Amino acid sequence: MRTSQYLLSTLKETPADAEIISHQLMLRAGMIRREASGMYTWLPNGIRVLRKVEAIVRDEMNKAGAIEVLMPMVQPAELWQESGRWEKMDAELLRFKDRHQRDFVLGPTHEEVITDLVRKEVSSYKQLPLNLYQIQTKFRDERRPRFGVMRAREFLMKDAYSFHLSQECLEKTYQAMYQAYSNIFTRLGLGFRPVLADTGAIGGAVSHEFHVLASSGEDAIVFSDASDYAANIEKAEALAPTTPRPAATAPVTEIATPNAGTIAEVAALLAVDASQIIKTLLVYGERTDDKGPQPLVALLLRGDHDLNEIKAEKLAGVQSPLTFATEADIKAVTGASAGSLGPVGLSIRIVADRSAAVVANFVCGANKDGYHLSGVNFDRDIAQYEVADLRNVVEGDPSPCGQGQLVIKRGIEVGHIFQLGDRYAAAMKAGVLNEEGKHQIMTMGCYGVGVSRIVAAAIEQNHDQHGIIWPAAIAPFQVALVPMNMHKSVRIQDTAEALYKALTAAGVEVLFDDRKERPGVMFADMELLGVPHHIVIGERNLDERLVEYKNRRSGDKSLLAIDDVVAEILAKLV
Amino acid sequence: MRTSQYLLSTLKETPADAEIISHQLMLRAGMIRREASGMYTWLPNGIRVLRKVEAIVRDEMNKAGAIEVLMPMVQPAELWQESGRWEKMDAELLRFKDRHQRDFVLGPTHEEVITDLVRKEVSSYKQLPLNLYQIQTKFRDERRPRFGVMRAREFLMKDAYSFHLSQECLEKTYQAMYQAYSNIFTRLGLGFRPVLADTGAIGGAVSHEFHVLASSGEDAIVFSDASDYAANIEKAEALAPTTPRPAATAPVTEIATPNAGTIAEVAALLAVDASQIIKTLLVYGERTDDKGPQPLVALLLRGDHDLNEIKAEKLAGVQSPLTFATEADIKAVTGASAGSLGPVGLSIRIVADRSAAVVANFVCGANKDGYHLSGVNFDRDIAQYEVADLRNVVEGDPSPCGQGQLVIKRGIEVGHIFQLGDRYAAAMKAGVLNEEGKHQIMTMGCYGVGVSRIVAAAIEQNHDQHGIIWPAAIAPFQVALVPMNMHKSVRIQDTAEALYKALTAAGVEVLFDDRKERPGVMFADMELLGVPHHIVIGERNLDERLVEYKNRRSGDKSLLAIDDVVAEILAKLV
Repeated sequence: MRTSQYLLSTLKETPADAEIISHQLMLRAGMIRREASGMYTWLPNGIRVLRKVEAIVRDEMNKAGAIEVLMPMVQPAELWQESGRWEKMDAELLRFKDRHQRDFVLGPTHEEVITDLVRKEVSSYKQLPLNLYQIQTKFRDERRPRFGVMRAREFLMKDAYSFHLSQECLEKTYQAMYQAYSNIFTRLGLGFRPVLADTGAIGGAVSHEFHVLASSGEDAIVFSDASDYAANIEKAEALAPTTPRPAATAPVTEIATPNAGTIAEVAALLAVDASQIIKTLLVYGERTDDKGPQPLVALLLRGDHDLNEIKAEKLAGVQSPLTFATEADIKAVTGASAGSLGPVGLSIRIVADRSAAVVANFVCGANKDGYHLSGVNFDRDIAQYEVADLRNVVEGDPSPCGQGQLVIKRGIEVGHIFQLGDRYAAAMKAGVLNEEGKHQIMTMGCYGVGVSRIVAAAIEQNHDQHGIIWPAAIAPFQVALVPMNMHKSVRIQDTAEALYKALTAAGVEVLFDDRKERPGVMFADMELLGVPHHIVIGERNLDERLVEYKNRRSGDKSLLAIDDVVAEILAKLV
Repeated sequence: MRTSQYLLSTLKETPADAEIISHQLMLRAGMIRREASGMYTWLPNGIRVLRKVEAIVRDEMNKAGAIEVLMPMVQPAELWQESGRWEKMDAELLRFKDRHQRDFVLGPTHEEVITDLVRKEVSSYKQLPLNLYQIQTKFRDERRPRFGVMRAREFLMKDAYSFHLSQECLEKTYQAMYQAYSNIFTRLGLGFRPVLADTGAIGGAVSHEFHVLASSGEDAIVFSDASDYAANIEKAEALAPTTPRPAATAPVTEIATPNAGTIAEVAALLAVDASQIIKTLLVYGERTDDKGPQPLVALLLRGDHDLNEIKAEKLAGVQSPLTFATEADIKAVTGASAGSLGPVGLSIRIVADRSAAVVANFVCGANKDGYHLSGVNFDRDIAQYEVADLRNVVEGDPSPCGQGQLVIKRGIEVGHIFQLGDRYAAAMKAGVLNEEGKHQIMTMGCYGVGVSRIVAAAIEQNHDQHGIIWPAAIAPFQVALVPMNMHKSVRIQDTAEALYKALTAAGVEVLFDDRKERPGVMFADMELLGVPHHIVIGERNLDERLVEYKNRRSGDKSLLAIDDVVAEILAKLV
């Protein structure tokens, strides 16, 4: 490709509205342009990468025995009503009416459509297992789309769905997908980790996320420093401390704490460590009858620990999705505002985090605005309470696997696999005749890859101050051919044209910068674009029939004989 | 691929709701399934074909210098308001609101988005010409979707848009696209014809359609029997007859024609040829002021000719889109109903088709219900009238190119190229600095291929009573491997497995029918699917180490030595 016949669209300045490096570099390198909030046009430099990612995903899915299909992006409301998600999902599910006033959605995912398809097409256990996938544009009307294609409204996804009659069979396909995903991210050239994950809104029992490791990642992921254990922080269990709770020695004392509402403020005022303060959070419980106000539940955590909302939401009797009590409801039940809450004298259900439950002689709110209590103890001062795992793990916690301590890194979720069970098949009555000739509901798995998101994640992991550094498999071009001042030198032009012809004929994807630009501008653009191999043609070396080679990642430079360029490049591309 | 691990989904019966052969065969061959009106899931047998078509289209577009991009399917209303199509397009343009109540459309085409992109990215004549394309799912909310993927609401399209500063430059790219399209349809293995076409709602000056020839085609296309001339019937000019009008010899006579309202009834009653009857159609003219009723225009045609609505719509002063007068308006102006209309004594504008204008002593309605006039003549009896080309050409008409006579065939439109001019660029102020440093509006071309429609068109052209006969380039599989009663014979099973392995290793796409089915069922499925080459393994030939080869298209059968199968198949695939 000649830049003169191409849409290069690089930008010198970093666009002000791009917060993260991949978004900035995708704009600067002419990969994407914003059309509307969360919607992007993929420019030539972008689509070349996207199509390579797509091809690798497709190839590995085929190799793993998955079979490609393509479902419509527009889906009839009836299917979502049948599964129950029409009511359950919020405005992220984009609903609209067609010209006949029938309800449709713009597909954010395809569990309903595939379940409907399979219940119609598959009637016998002989046709199972079946693993169907598609690579398709999805739409989720995110409340706050951001970070470019990282969290877009319209995006490209690979979604697969498998159908089985037994858990064993599901697990076999799940393992095959786990392996296929590992192959995909390995081939893409990305540093990644599969981690145990929560199943969230999709439902089901077992789930892994695949994360590209990057310090800018939105998600915290947790590793053992002594085993293979890895989990999303939402999922990682905080084990109960093994040391017993110290004895209750201090008396309960009320202390005036004017203007101290946060843990940090209270800790500073009273000169105690945050770990010696217990914070109280009030959330709504499930209603057990229709009368009276909605019950509240008090969650107790150490002042230096963070609530894990997923864990809290899973407590029996707690309203899902987890909802914090309003200031008015807090006042009505405790007589105090949120900054002065504590468990002493509370007449509502109390659940203490495992780590909070072993703290003695602690500080907490007094349920009286402007006051805290010190010397508070479980059992002695708080008769009724439950203990549960409610917090996010922190670095240094013992690993739930029993080996080693936890380390926390940042990751970008690019894949997610689920053992769904019969969540959709049961609701939609999707069954087949089993070996005994009886109708049996199928069990399902589902497996997603964020194809467009991978492009951004790869950049978060692979860049420097000059721009993108593409892994070989997904670079938009393999070689950048940069003739310096070609328009002033027939010799340089001839060499460049000959090399372009020879490299292209050898099947190499070359970006030939034939613009009338200063060499500095051309070098900067090729660095920004992240083309892995650069060939620079300059007057200085031409007498010896040499050109300069530069490796984008290492920065290493060397001189190559013109006649060896094709062979040398081919050797580097293997 | 083994059928046992695949989703074959063939049907024995022809679905009742499928009207045309490609829709029937796509359902029966397990290629598509209806999800909702005009929306289809592509099953494995379908997507394999669709992806091959897509790959050929992409390859030829790249070879022709077009550059791939990918625009969002969801488009902001503002762009459509800017181009004027937000108001102009009917409910076919699916409009909806996002969670923030902003207006969007589901993209039926992308002139607005690409023009917006290019006006932002391109600022200088040096960056032109530019030809950008995408292969993307489109949505058009058709009033009456039908014929499966032939006229679907959601479909896959390749759309390209080129940008220029001169008509010469546009014409050069237009020619390159014309050639690329010819290459695409040639590689697909389809019988096709490019024909001159009307530019319709997209606008612009010059346009060609590419038609796959098939007797079931929706469109009539017109050829000269003595030259290269070919046109859509909407576009083909009916030349003015060269023979002069005969003299007016008969007197005007009123004849009672009770119950004769149609041309056929009047012709039968009066024993005259339909070509001697002139029919009168009333359509609305453009309003010249806001007062009074909307003006009507009378169109006169020979009784054996059909009105060409595109030609009529283009007449100056006629309302666009062409709208026929209501019965009430006809009555108000003529005093008669539609079946008794005629030009004599009419006080409205009259336009006679060129062929009608040379008929003498003709029959027409008397503007009095139940009566016709005979012996009517232009000039003598109808003082004021214009003459224009208003009719569809018919077989035997002289070719507008001046050579030969016209022949009419049926076609399916699968591609359409337009010289758009500045229709969009002017409305959206898309310009660049030209060589003189002045801002100049660009001129555009646009080029569409109906990727999913091609699949259906290929079937309309290539099938027999047993099913589909795929052209080699787009067959879902190249070889069907059919072992007879494999489950009863180790020898057959071993041979089949060995051939499957050898063919697959040689890069051949094999569908290995390893189901426990009767041979008749397997043969019927492979014929239905249209796999080009069949290898049948039976006990009878195994002693001599032979298998049967059958060519799907010719039906020719021969015996092949097992050891030669791979080489023979590879030779056939070249």
